[in-house]
Amino acid sequence: MVTGIGDDCAVLRVPPGHEMLVTTDFTIENVHFRREWHRPELVGRRCLTRGLSDIAAMGGEPLAAFLSLAVATDVPQSWVDRFIKGLLDLAAEFKVPLAGGDTAQSAGGIQADIVVVGSVPKGKAVLRSGTKAGELIYVTGELGGSAAALARLQESKPVGAEYFRHFRPLARVAVGQWLRQRGVASAMIDLSDGLSTDLEHICQESHVGAEIEAEAVPRAGVGLRKKPVALDLALHGGDDYELLFTSAKAVPAEVAGVRVTPIGRTTRSAGIRLIGADGKARPLKARGWEHFKGNL
Amino acid sequence: MVTGIGDDCAVLRVPPGHEMLVTTDFTIENVHFRREWHRPELVGRRCLTRGLSDIAAMGGEPLAAFLSLAVATDVPQSWVDRFIKGLLDLAAEFKVPLAGGDTAQSAGGIQADIVVVGSVPKGKAVLRSGTKAGELIYVTGELGGSAAALARLQESKPVGAEYFRHFRPLARVAVGQWLRQRGVASAMIDLSDGLSTDLEHICQESHVGAEIEAEAVPRAGVGLRKKPVALDLALHGGDDYELLFTSAKAVPAEVAGVRVTPIGRTTRSAGIRLIGADGKARPLKARGWEHFKGNL
Repeated sequence: MVTGIGDDCAVLRVPPGHEMLVTTDFTIENVHFRREWHRPELVGRRCLTRGLSDIAAMGGEPLAAFLSLAVATDVPQSWVDRFIKGLLDLAAEFKVPLAGGDTAQSAGGIQADIVVVGSVPKGKAVLRSGTKAGELIYVTGELGGSAAALARLQESKPVGAEYFRHFRPLARVAVGQWLRQRGVASAMIDLSDGLSTDLEHICQESHVGAEIEAEAVPRAGVGLRKKPVALDLALHGGDDYELLFTSAKAVPAEVAGVRVTPIGRTTRSAGIRLIGADGKARPLKARGWEHFKGNL
Repeated sequence: MVTGIGDDCAVLRVPPGHEMLVTTDFTIENVHFRREWHRPELVGRRCLTRGLSDIAAMGGEPLAAFLSLAVATDVPQSWVDRFIKGLLDLAAEFKVPLAGGDTAQSAGGIQADIVVVGSVPKGKAVLRSGTKAGELIYVTGELGGSAAALARLQESKPVGAEYFRHFRPLARVAVGQWLRQRGVASAMIDLSDGLSTDLEHICQESHVGAEIEAEAVPRAGVGLRKKPVALDLALHGGDDYELLFTSAKAVPAEVAGVRVTPIGRTTRSAGIRLIGADGKARPLKARGWEHFKGNL
């Protein structure tokens, strides 16, 4: 599928009747991760997850990844080796070759840019623009777990293995493909910036509004007692890499081994409203995931 | 050709019977450019040129570009606007849409990663590995002009419009396509790191050696009197974005309006030798272009 690795360009063969998908995502030290908080293997893993998750959100199949990595001279080689190992381990899990990239000396810190190329049958990519009013809105998995881990790190509290979505992010590639193959998802996006922000992208592109039932939003259980995270973390926290999609069809409660939960519906009237347990609606503002900007 | 711009991925349609080319290149402040030396429009232009030139070196057709740009908060918005303008102006010249990318806050300075996606008829990409002993080696244009401009900048000397290859870099896309379409180039690479380094890449991938005639290397004329640059700059200076290729066929002295010069031949014996005006051979070591690493 991929030749020319190490040449001026990688050469990719696209399956007949397919289109190519291309996505690119930065991972920047002190913006997306901190060396004192995140093991290098995790940083590498999340770097690739960001790209794979975008392919998942189109219902695509990842074909190859490209890594551009800039590292300052004071970053130990062992850090870089472990970063690459985390990335390659995940690439192997998804059978995605690392087909090229670039390396450079950084003027300070670490900057990585991941490119993932994928394929999808012609005309079948699930866009953000495909829903209309009156469809149900679904999410995969549970939300807010990654933001909860980050909140604890910022307070210097211990975070254990129960925060696995933060420390072991996983792109929902199989779920995305299942939803695309069966024509179930009319519009889809991955939750990298947080539900409120990413839902707004679908609403804008599809020219609809949305109502979300606060009680229906599946919140990640954290800590030893699996206590659900605060609603705000589930509504606005990023880096969960779950899928948010709309559908007018029957959707099973589990797809490819992952829980799928209806959380609301698209509406003719613009804007996003959150319906509380008391049935009252209030506007849900997009509070974009700005990573830990401002906290440094 | 490109849809899904602004979605999770861009969706690219590959022409029937074609393969995809993918290349990615970093442009990093104080490594690849300096704000006090290089206008933002030029930095944007060279950023895209780096990717287009890799497509040219495969004999490919560029289809779309993707820009990931990280900028520190103290970089003026006007700098970013002018950088983007330089990049988009060149993209328009080559009819290559900017189809996506990523933006982020940088922890310091400016980092840009350009991805260019192209296409080439199946099996026809010109690789570095395609030459054998006894073929002629050619370069397009003149070499060393960009390194000469950089040397003057480092000495705080004025540099004028005559250093146009440094200040107006241009990818040899039409030349690369011509050479590929007629099956003229057996192996090809672009001169981004410098002749000695890039020729070594061809030799290693093709398992050949090479002899270069010092007198034959076309040196850029600089200054008002168009004085040829020092041989060392032509042999080792980078960022010229000319094409280096091998051929066993007849090659015209000009292709797509660009001068093409035979500079030596591939050999059975390994290593690269420089033949002086006196006919004596000395080893030509790859002295890779390390931008201005060490000069800061």
